[in-house]
Amino acid sequence: MDDKSVPNIVVGRLPLYLRTLQLMFQEGRRVTSSQELGERLGISAAQIRKDLSQFGEFGKQGTGYSIDFLTDQLRSILHVNKVWDVAVVGIGDVGHALARYQGFSNRGFRIVLLFDNNPQKIGTHVGEFTIQDLSTMVSQIRSAGVQIAMLSVPVDQAQLVTNLLVEAGVKSILNYAPINISVPIGVRVQYIDPVLHLQRMTYYLE
Amino acid sequence: MDDKSVPNIVVGRLPLYLRTLQLMFQEGRRVTSSQELGERLGISAAQIRKDLSQFGEFGKQGTGYSIDFLTDQLRSILHVNKVWDVAVVGIGDVGHALARYQGFSNRGFRIVLLFDNNPQKIGTHVGEFTIQDLSTMVSQIRSAGVQIAMLSVPVDQAQLVTNLLVEAGVKSILNYAPINISVPIGVRVQYIDPVLHLQRMTYYLE
Repeated sequence: MDDKSVPNIVVGRLPLYLRTLQLMFQEGRRVTSSQELGERLGISAAQIRKDLSQFGEFGKQGTGYSIDFLTDQLRSILHVNKVWDVAVVGIGDVGHALARYQGFSNRGFRIVLLFDNNPQKIGTHVGEFTIQDLSTMVSQIRSAGVQIAMLSVPVDQAQLVTNLLVEAGVKSILNYAPINISVPIGVRVQYIDPVLHLQRMTYYLE
Repeated sequence: MDDKSVPNIVVGRLPLYLRTLQLMFQEGRRVTSSQELGERLGISAAQIRKDLSQFGEFGKQGTGYSIDFLTDQLRSILHVNKVWDVAVVGIGDVGHALARYQGFSNRGFRIVLLFDNNPQKIGTHVGEFTIQDLSTMVSQIRSAGVQIAMLSVPVDQAQLVTNLLVEAGVKSILNYAPINISVPIGVRVQYIDPVLHLQRMTYYLE
């Protein structure tokens, strides 16, 4: 998985650069600099230049970066110059919010499948989608060729459902259940747990 | 803010250790080791021992860590041996999910105030809470002494609402709006943007 030579931590900053460039473009801006990007992000200009230099020469000395061009390059590097289909598993409040979230469009993702195991939810609609039976998940994800899933099931079901996602061919899991999950080599997991972020801040509060 | 000697990145791992210990305790476990914690988290045992050693001696050579004791110590270090009141600002789908999220209890947080500026939402209920008018936010947060807020407003309102939160005395903001916000020294921000995590994974997909 990590056979590419660019460190993981550098890859992790690229989406932040892309997001900021896209916002600048929406503001009507067309050119920026590593200094300005750095100020918006709280990252040093030198770090940004170093990160980007791993992928090529994107700016000209003295004239900065073309926002449009650098945006295209980053979208290409991150493989979000296409739209990825995503499945959401577990349609409680969090899954529901994800299914309706407007922030995926134009950033490379669209939700195409929703699953739950609650008979009272199966067959009901969230926006344009119908919640499907979890028992059909493996075959549906496999036949749709979906490689990305967001997991918002209860903690005690997270590993079990993860195993099914892996069986279905999913390669990237964004896990909202507050528990670490195990996946085989070749599958990536990212985590979202608001409490981890909150506790990281209360350390500094009295 | 960073006058404490422990690096930020170490502080960031402590909530992960705490979460894992609490899960182990629920599983009926009473003793663990840095090796076992490390395996669950994908972090080296040496790193865990080094992180914990910044705060004291919590384990005995050969017998490992008492889960109960280490949990208490970490809760104390992270200041979540009390319950912090939290305000949620912006009650769209994400804010709604946060207001109803069951995962805060026993981890140091409870939501006490909800705000929105939509007249159709103000006065309506989410669970046991009434959505309050954003125009009353500063005075209500100030008089309640709330120091922590979760921000789930649209991107174009995020900085404005942040400024109000700072004015109200909030010291820690968990920002769900996909934009970087500016805060004065003494205020901390953490970010949650699922797209950043997804893009970090698509880099490795074909």
